[in-house]
Amino acid sequence: MSQLLRTRPATTDAMLAIFDDAATLRHALAFEAALAAAEAAEGLLASEDAAAIADLCASIVLDPAALAAEAGHAGTLAIPLVARLRAALPRQATAVHKGTTSQDLADTVLSCQIRDAAALLRSDVDALAADLARLAERHAATPALGRTLLQDARPIGFGLRIAHWHAGIRGAARRLEAEVARHAVLQFGGAAGTREGLDGKGAAVAARLGRALGLADAPPWHARRDGMAGIAAAVAILIGALGKMARDVSLLSQNAVEEAREPSIPGRGGSSAMAHKRNPTGCQIALAAGHRAPGLVAGVLFGLPAEGERGLGGWQAEGPVLAELFLLAAGSAAAMAEVAQGLAIDPVAIARNLDAAGLGEDIGESAALVSQLLSDGGEG
Amino acid sequence: MSQLLRTRPATTDAMLAIFDDAATLRHALAFEAALAAAEAAEGLLASEDAAAIADLCASIVLDPAALAAEAGHAGTLAIPLVARLRAALPRQATAVHKGTTSQDLADTVLSCQIRDAAALLRSDVDALAADLARLAERHAATPALGRTLLQDARPIGFGLRIAHWHAGIRGAARRLEAEVARHAVLQFGGAAGTREGLDGKGAAVAARLGRALGLADAPPWHARRDGMAGIAAAVAILIGALGKMARDVSLLSQNAVEEAREPSIPGRGGSSAMAHKRNPTGCQIALAAGHRAPGLVAGVLFGLPAEGERGLGGWQAEGPVLAELFLLAAGSAAAMAEVAQGLAIDPVAIARNLDAAGLGEDIGESAALVSQLLSDGGEG
Amino acid sequence: MSQLLRTRPATTDAMLAIFDDAATLRHALAFEAALAAAEAAEGLLASEDAAAIADLCASIVLDPAALAAEAGHAGTLAIPLVARLRAALPRQATAVHKGTTSQDLADTVLSCQIRDAAALLRSDVDALAADLARLAERHAATPALGRTLLQDARPIGFGLRIAHWHAGIRGAARRLEAEVARHAVLQFGGAAGTREGLDGKGAAVAARLGRALGLADAPPWHARRDGMAGIAAAVAILIGALGKMARDVSLLSQNAVEEAREPSIPGRGGSSAMAHKRNPTGCQIALAAGHRAPGLVAGVLFGLPAEGERGLGGWQAEGPVLAELFLLAAGSAAAMAEVAQGLAIDPVAIARNLDAAGLGEDIGESAALVSQLLSDGGEG
Amino acid sequence: MSQLLRTRPATTDAMLAIFDDAATLRHALAFEAALAAAEAAEGLLASEDAAAIADLCASIVLDPAALAAEAGHAGTLAIPLVARLRAALPRQATAVHKGTTSQDLADTVLSCQIRDAAALLRSDVDALAADLARLAERHAATPALGRTLLQDARPIGFGLRIAHWHAGIRGAARRLEAEVARHAVLQFGGAAGTREGLDGKGAAVAARLGRALGLADAPPWHARRDGMAGIAAAVAILIGALGKMARDVSLLSQNAVEEAREPSIPGRGGSSAMAHKRNPTGCQIALAAGHRAPGLVAGVLFGLPAEGERGLGGWQAEGPVLAELFLLAAGSAAAMAEVAQGLAIDPVAIARNLDAAGLGEDIGESAALVSQLLSDGGEG
Repeated sequence: MSQLLRTRPATTDAMLAIFDDAATLRHALAFEAALAAAEAAEGLLASEDAAAIADLCASIVLDPAALAAEAGHAGTLAIPLVARLRAALPRQATAVHKGTTSQDLADTVLSCQIRDAAALLRSDVDALAADLARLAERHAATPALGRTLLQDARPIGFGLRIAHWHAGIRGAARRLEAEVARHAVLQFGGAAGTREGLDGKGAAVAARLGRALGLADAPPWHARRDGMAGIAAAVAILIGALGKMARDVSLLSQNAVEEAREPSIPGRGGSSAMAHKRNPTGCQIALAAGHRAPGLVAGVLFGLPAEGERGLGGWQAEGPVLAELFLLAAGSAAAMAEVAQGLAIDPVAIARNLDAAGLGEDIGESAALVSQLLSDGGEG
Repeated sequence: MSQLLRTRPATTDAMLAIFDDAATLRHALAFEAALAAAEAAEGLLASEDAAAIADLCASIVLDPAALAAEAGHAGTLAIPLVARLRAALPRQATAVHKGTTSQDLADTVLSCQIRDAAALLRSDVDALAADLARLAERHAATPALGRTLLQDARPIGFGLRIAHWHAGIRGAARRLEAEVARHAVLQFGGAAGTREGLDGKGAAVAARLGRALGLADAPPWHARRDGMAGIAAAVAILIGALGKMARDVSLLSQNAVEEAREPSIPGRGGSSAMAHKRNPTGCQIALAAGHRAPGLVAGVLFGLPAEGERGLGGWQAEGPVLAELFLLAAGSAAAMAEVAQGLAIDPVAIARNLDAAGLGEDIGESAALVSQLLSDGGEG
Repeated sequence: MSQLLRTRPATTDAMLAIFDDAATLRHALAFEAALAAAEAAEGLLASEDAAAIADLCASIVLDPAALAAEAGHAGTLAIPLVARLRAALPRQATAVHKGTTSQDLADTVLSCQIRDAAALLRSDVDALAADLARLAERHAATPALGRTLLQDARPIGFGLRIAHWHAGIRGAARRLEAEVARHAVLQFGGAAGTREGLDGKGAAVAARLGRALGLADAPPWHARRDGMAGIAAAVAILIGALGKMARDVSLLSQNAVEEAREPSIPGRGGSSAMAHKRNPTGCQIALAAGHRAPGLVAGVLFGLPAEGERGLGGWQAEGPVLAELFLLAAGSAAAMAEVAQGLAIDPVAIARNLDAAGLGEDIGESAALVSQLLSDGGEG
Repeated sequence: MSQLLRTRPATTDAMLAIFDDAATLRHALAFEAALAAAEAAEGLLASEDAAAIADLCASIVLDPAALAAEAGHAGTLAIPLVARLRAALPRQATAVHKGTTSQDLADTVLSCQIRDAAALLRSDVDALAADLARLAERHAATPALGRTLLQDARPIGFGLRIAHWHAGIRGAARRLEAEVARHAVLQFGGAAGTREGLDGKGAAVAARLGRALGLADAPPWHARRDGMAGIAAAVAILIGALGKMARDVSLLSQNAVEEAREPSIPGRGGSSAMAHKRNPTGCQIALAAGHRAPGLVAGVLFGLPAEGERGLGGWQAEGPVLAELFLLAAGSAAAMAEVAQGLAIDPVAIARNLDAAGLGEDIGESAALVSQLLSDGGEG
């Protein structure tokens, strides 16, 4: 039942790995082990019990397919997972998953995956931004035809267009980093979010747990999903900024324009029917992501008015949707990084098109704007 | 890199199978084989070449992971797939994939999967509708509290509420069937949609090809995606109609109301923190689908203004999104079928709540409306 | 507080009139008058009372601004409106709005407006389709460059592209007509949808009421919104089909392509900064609508899982959103009708571009496909 | 053609005024006057010409309906507006709108309106937050039933729920303020964004112009719309956070629960059919906004991959959509402020429901969490 033909073309193996079953289970087991350790450190569990739980979490072999089917039936992964842990440790049954609940596990695992996904994205985006900065500077003062509403408009520095791609992508990446830093945090509240049953040591346990998992500590946010919505929107805006570059490259690579082209890479951009074609396949990936991301964000936003202390339907929809957004962002960033690295800019075509338009070569303050955009990344 | 924990809880194994790699490749190979046969029947290929292609398509072993990675790079599955077929049949290389193009393959495979998915959905929906009809009739004249804007309103027949679920689901299912019948059809147009290179026999080849694949023949629709948008919207409306039932069941099963409850099924609806709980997990699945589906439809709708004879980014986003919609619909329909089959309706609680409201027992024309709704399924 | 600069540029005066305050109040008063008449005819009211109500509804002068403010506070227009009617007819106070409720009024008014809006759209779409059919036939066999993924692909008949626009728009218009015919119907259910308090004559009253208002009769659908969702999706698909034409015209009118251009109309398409420009402003309207419509549909779909016998928040969001969709469709259809009527197709540029591509002139079965698309409108 | 019945119920007069025709024209005229003054100060215009323009902008009487119709035709407001200014000042015709373009005007006006709208929202949100903080503290340690997945779960402090509303709303308001501060900035780039034709003094003119209009200066962002997308998302997240409060209040005010109720306000929450009802109308407004906002955000996100130096269709869709989002946010914030101010919390019902559940009164660390949430506003 592999679904690779449906999911893989839009993303990368590295991002798929961050959200795959192995990663999910690794984070889930780390949560249970770290929770027991934190509780033991606070005197809520015997250290031997915590050690036994840690040993089990380090060694247990789980069948993702079976767990996935049971999770669908139970409504959450925690139920079959905890049942297995308790079955394996009958003497520590009450020590396992003590003072916590399914959503604590699900949300914390999601935070870990978002943190990892954002870090992965950052490396592709940084490489891409560096290439764009280089290209923007090199072509900052090259007179080129500017086009507005798809019509020839006025001359611009060719690098000014690239500097805008750079500013948009960098600005979007910064928004995402800020949202992730603030909101991809520990969730630990217990059954109804009060941290009951922990002898008043819930905050202390949370602090230890967050440290162990590498997540910032925070008050529970189980029914308050604005942070996840902020992250979702930020990923989609990054996808949109990458899509802006893709739109422009695809328009510039029209045969009637041919000012820039995706690099020629074996296996990329051919046609099954037309040997002569060189399709803008990297742009296709980024633009397709740009079609899918906005609606995914809507799906997260709609879940904000959640019911009571744990909503029914809204936050459960978030996890798969956030994963999808990061998968699309990864595919898009990787494709655009490859395009930027080898972008074939044709100064002859640029000059010819500008000349044909008969609009002169006054590019105004393009060069200064390139410098400004590259230095402040498009900050307001 | 399995992604089951992310995708499986929201759907069913049967629907996952319809969109998995094996099914995709099976349909793709069937397309290539049937195309060669159709072209041979029209005298465009030697029969031995068509037979060799058919043999190859029946026997070739393909690695989905490798194909998926290459498809991501090439922009479409057809390119690496056709390359393998041609490599395996060097003497028939020009006969393979003759007169067709990548999008013909992709769209036709998608049509096959949609046809199969709709048929699968129908069986769950039919069972669900039958159960709801039975319940609606049984409780048609049972006075119950009607609630509007979440406030006690006036008495209704308890079965009237169920008859509305039935009408909504049946109406939505009928819309979906009509859209699928009309729009999940053969796509066959060749490189730019003109059926060139077939000696004027393109229409005849299309007719044969459609018959062989069990799809209605149609003029090419490569850059005209209103049919796919209609299907997407219809699936989402069905998900919404299932969500309406789920919303009501979840509200009725509040402890302070308790007029109806999901059936008690081992493994379903427990809590990892609270042994006393019986969560409306089936409703959760349907409501979560209701959060995700609307944005997915938006993603398809946004692709309608496609570029030229084959758009860049829009239709490529459709396949995964349509698959996601059908996966969510399947999970939702299966969950609601299970809920309907065992729905625990409590007449004592119904009577007690109505009595407490002090609004009398006049249920107006509820019973007649139940009959009308069940017979015409909510037709305007 | 007029908002014309925000709303008018995207639509037409005629469509604004269909959803403006005067029309809303006209339909609302017609509902109250027709209801009283129907109830009198069924012996539920005295004829004099019905006549008094009819007289009042024909003569009362209402202040939309005051009503709008009060409706915002009350949650629905019916409350302040009915209060005014009752205040004006103290002796018929109980006869006014008898057996009905706010949502009956709101939904029925919306159905009337949708019916009128669809009829208005149809005239623009028919004119547009006729012009496109003419152009498609005239250029059916004109060899032109086909472009896929924004790259030169293979020759097509220039008219084949236009025939696809025609088929997409016609198919979408037909879907909309079918949805409107089926779902823009009378809503009449009373407080909780049971038609109580009418001595068992609710169905008879509904039949009379529907006839008087020119709407098909139907069982109540207050909490079953799949019909409205179907209409919303159909409008958006029509907007998308119009957007497809706009996308192609805007790409064809690029200075480097110039195969087709919007007609030159005084006041349209200038630039405030560049006297030489001729912007594709009609396309801009249609493409902007194509950006807004998908999310609006999502807003309606989200409301399907409504609460109980009258939801809280979902259906109340529908009215303004459906109005917005029809407003955008009207603006888009009018703009594209104007573009189609005067589309400047340049055979010299078409021939020059095809020649430059060096791909020959084989347009396959383009001409036959044009005939087929024009005759069956792209039916599957 | 007033549209108040369609738009007013979901918003406030004050927010409608911010986006109405008078405000739009006031900002537009201020832009033209300030631009001329800035250019004169930089020696690009004669001071007398700038003075004449300023005089005209202060005195000209414009007909919004005529301008709106012409703007629809021309594609932008600037064209008919500038034509009128030039016609009124034939001797200063070239001095009017010098070095700028339609989008500079449109985007800058939008930035001014967003700035004003955000300030207006802030006052309602601050009042609301103060009331919620007060309520959260008062009820911090009141044992109440917590509910998860709509089922009775475990006791919580009643004030903890309110503290979460507070944290969600405050966090969302802060995100919005940050986005507005950074992105609702001057747009000034001229025909293709290069600030040509200003003798290299474009940056100086921009600095003066921004100061005069009270907007931060920035490099042009005409084709880089991530800032507008960030604002749109932030407004929607605020709407969602308000919707969370509304969801909870509406569930708590169910007759079977009755732990909290909207205040009783004359004219609010009645029923046209049921005198006994007290509907949660404030919640209805907020929840309806929560249905509409997510799709509106999608509409902005779709526009990010804009074409070249000025997109066709994307950014033109932004203005009306952003206005709609702020209008919905205003209606929602005003409604929830009214609800918070008079929220009727019933300690007897709270105690009774908790007692009936038989789950004890252990509210864990609720009180400490309330303090933490109120002090840090839900920061991660």
